[in-house]
Amino acid sequence: MPHKILLDESEMPTAWYNIMADLPTPPPPPLHPGTGQPAGPEDLAALFPMPLIEQEVSTERWIDIPGEVLDIYRLWRPSPLYRAHRLEKALGTPARIYYKYEGVSPAGSHKPNTAVPQAFYNKQAGINRLTTETGAGQWGTSLAFACAQFDMECEIWQVRASYDSKPYRGMMMRTFGGVIHPSPSELTQAGRDILARDPDSPGSLGIAISEAVEVAAQDPATNYALGSVLNHVLLHQTIIGEEALLQLAKVGETPDLIVGCTGGGSNFGGLAFPFLREKLNGTMSPTIRAVEPEACPSLTQGVYAYDFGDTAGLTPLLKMHTLGHDFIPDPIHAGGLRYHGMSPLISHVYEEGLIEAVARPQSECFAAGVQFARTEGIVPAPEPTHALAEAVREALACKESGEEKVILTALCGHGHLDLPAYDAYLTEGVNDHSIADADLRAAVDEALTHLPHLA
Amino acid sequence: MPHKILLDESEMPTAWYNIMADLPTPPPPPLHPGTGQPAGPEDLAALFPMPLIEQEVSTERWIDIPGEVLDIYRLWRPSPLYRAHRLEKALGTPARIYYKYEGVSPAGSHKPNTAVPQAFYNKQAGINRLTTETGAGQWGTSLAFACAQFDMECEIWQVRASYDSKPYRGMMMRTFGGVIHPSPSELTQAGRDILARDPDSPGSLGIAISEAVEVAAQDPATNYALGSVLNHVLLHQTIIGEEALLQLAKVGETPDLIVGCTGGGSNFGGLAFPFLREKLNGTMSPTIRAVEPEACPSLTQGVYAYDFGDTAGLTPLLKMHTLGHDFIPDPIHAGGLRYHGMSPLISHVYEEGLIEAVARPQSECFAAGVQFARTEGIVPAPEPTHALAEAVREALACKESGEEKVILTALCGHGHLDLPAYDAYLTEGVNDHSIADADLRAAVDEALTHLPHLA
Repeated sequence: MPHKILLDESEMPTAWYNIMADLPTPPPPPLHPGTGQPAGPEDLAALFPMPLIEQEVSTERWIDIPGEVLDIYRLWRPSPLYRAHRLEKALGTPARIYYKYEGVSPAGSHKPNTAVPQAFYNKQAGINRLTTETGAGQWGTSLAFACAQFDMECEIWQVRASYDSKPYRGMMMRTFGGVIHPSPSELTQAGRDILARDPDSPGSLGIAISEAVEVAAQDPATNYALGSVLNHVLLHQTIIGEEALLQLAKVGETPDLIVGCTGGGSNFGGLAFPFLREKLNGTMSPTIRAVEPEACPSLTQGVYAYDFGDTAGLTPLLKMHTLGHDFIPDPIHAGGLRYHGMSPLISHVYEEGLIEAVARPQSECFAAGVQFARTEGIVPAPEPTHALAEAVREALACKESGEEKVILTALCGHGHLDLPAYDAYLTEGVNDHSIADADLRAAVDEALTHLPHLA
Repeated sequence: MPHKILLDESEMPTAWYNIMADLPTPPPPPLHPGTGQPAGPEDLAALFPMPLIEQEVSTERWIDIPGEVLDIYRLWRPSPLYRAHRLEKALGTPARIYYKYEGVSPAGSHKPNTAVPQAFYNKQAGINRLTTETGAGQWGTSLAFACAQFDMECEIWQVRASYDSKPYRGMMMRTFGGVIHPSPSELTQAGRDILARDPDSPGSLGIAISEAVEVAAQDPATNYALGSVLNHVLLHQTIIGEEALLQLAKVGETPDLIVGCTGGGSNFGGLAFPFLREKLNGTMSPTIRAVEPEACPSLTQGVYAYDFGDTAGLTPLLKMHTLGHDFIPDPIHAGGLRYHGMSPLISHVYEEGLIEAVARPQSECFAAGVQFARTEGIVPAPEPTHALAEAVREALACKESGEEKVILTALCGHGHLDLPAYDAYLTEGVNDHSIADADLRAAVDEALTHLPHLA
């Protein structure tokens, strides 16, 4: 059995998979915050080009990937699927662990899968500048790279906690031609309001989104791009799962368990949705499990309710598992998982019982990350160590039970620019920032009372 | 024509190529510094295990790669060969540019190709600890990873200029389980002597080698490992060129020009030697060109003479192009190219007229690196930007002449941990640290007078 399961460029999928076509029940629509009525295309047109708005609401099963996007995907796609022989051996497990590795992309994660088509559709619509938020920096890097492909400007608000702790990410964005600001910033009303209340605010994804949206809404030639959460973003990421299906078929394997980390949900959805289709079809029956940090447990401890996607309340209301739109997670190292809400699609399939979710402390995740690095030779980003930790738990359970489970996980990025987090873990340890359930529920209830007509 | 030219694991070469078997004349042997006579195996046995000493002097054409080494190579090998379609388009050149990418390895460069077999042969010989030097940190990272595979300790002296400017490299070494010291250090006599003369010494590869060799020589259970320069190191790297030969054959291409950067020479030799064999065979006739930094031009401005491999004079004398063993190059960002000497094998084939060499200023190299990143989606390490700059020059010459040259280059590593160098280049520019020929020759002559009986 080889370590690498590769696809030729000619085998790369040429359509994205839209899970909306196969869901037993449709997910609740986004609502206009002023009226409480379903938001129409016109409510999104100030921020997004029409092809992306159409993808957001489409129920077509397959959506063709444009040729220019495929040409850029070919720089790193199809991405490799690896069998973790050496990790399995170190664990002494009969389980077979596969990881789909997205760290080969220009940004070092799965994010360019959607950055490239978003830049493409915007350029086609005559847009010359995109604004966005970024947490750990993967998304900002991806959009900077994507904009460089289409000769567009890219302006990025990065959560200050990550901006300060991960300076290399900003350098990479600038190398790809992006312009970067720490958030909250003095450049927007949303930022200035936060800074007036808390000059030392560490920021959050919700705040950074407010800033980027505010700037885009003011300029007709500027649009906004979101790196996770929305339907069209998860759509673009399904190329991960489609490739993984082809790759596992090449070696005759069917997964028993699929684990992915969840922040906004795009990496998880990208891997899981094609397999969920097969599960709904009855062709396979994997357990599909989301893994989130204990410090930001939107699926396992949040409420399923309409809430804003951002902190300032500029976005449509989304029905999702949320910790409240003004929840600011503790500064755990997995910056990409520090988001108060969860993708409406992921939230919906979780409510429908089609997927499971667990929350894990970051110390356990780093331990798995170090073991993975020393056996498989790849230092994982802190985000996917959450999925790796769960894979390790399951593999050790198989060691006890003797089960030969096939475990598939998404290694959604490398940790080259997250090495200070590993250094902190190895030298002084990390705080798990777990939240007491009662404290969290009180905070969430408080946050959602700001949305009276939806209560 | 695809972007990626991949080999299956089953197509991975299973033997290293030894150019000693095919050279028109043999290279001069290393000499014992005390006697001036050729150094025998016993002179090297305090530092290296016998299989590596045998490889150092072997004239067998093919040397089998041990199965355990192949198993680890499969984590990232065969490495991809890419066609630089998007760079070609940006340059408007009719040239076809291919790059063999070694950044997919655990350390992010070609260095694990030799770190793994070196650790393997040492472990077989009962050695439990390896010491080494590292410049930019690629080699130290590689050896730390390799030692982790065989449950060995790894202790690394890193040139202080790089230790201070590239902190992420030390973090990565520690993540793989290595122990790292800035060099010069107080831990060795060699380090203390340097610090006594210059407490602020930025260090050099030569000094760091002295420290690592000193520690290894004092403990029978500890050996030393060198990441470049020596014959057995270049031997292990030939898997790069052997794979590239297979990959170019898959697309029916024959290179007209091969360019690689040279520090100690292992990346260049690894790519070039298999093609040099084909050139000596008469099956192809590429120009083969080494590219070195103007700040450390051992091939183009050094002398071809016997000199020490390290600063303190602990190694055998090697016949090589050298700037003098106490030459301390200016702290250019390509730390891996800051070595006073050049591999004896590379020096020899250069003297024989089988390869060419040029020196380039680092500003031109960074410009090529940024253009490459924005078009091909990979931020290159500063070292291979020297080769990329030369590829760009040639591609632009082809644009003038209309020639459809096939250019092959070694992209020997990514620059994820070198981003501060890009940031410096993009924000304030970089000093080229070029050296006036007359000044350099005077310094070299002065350095070599310390070797009176070889003058």
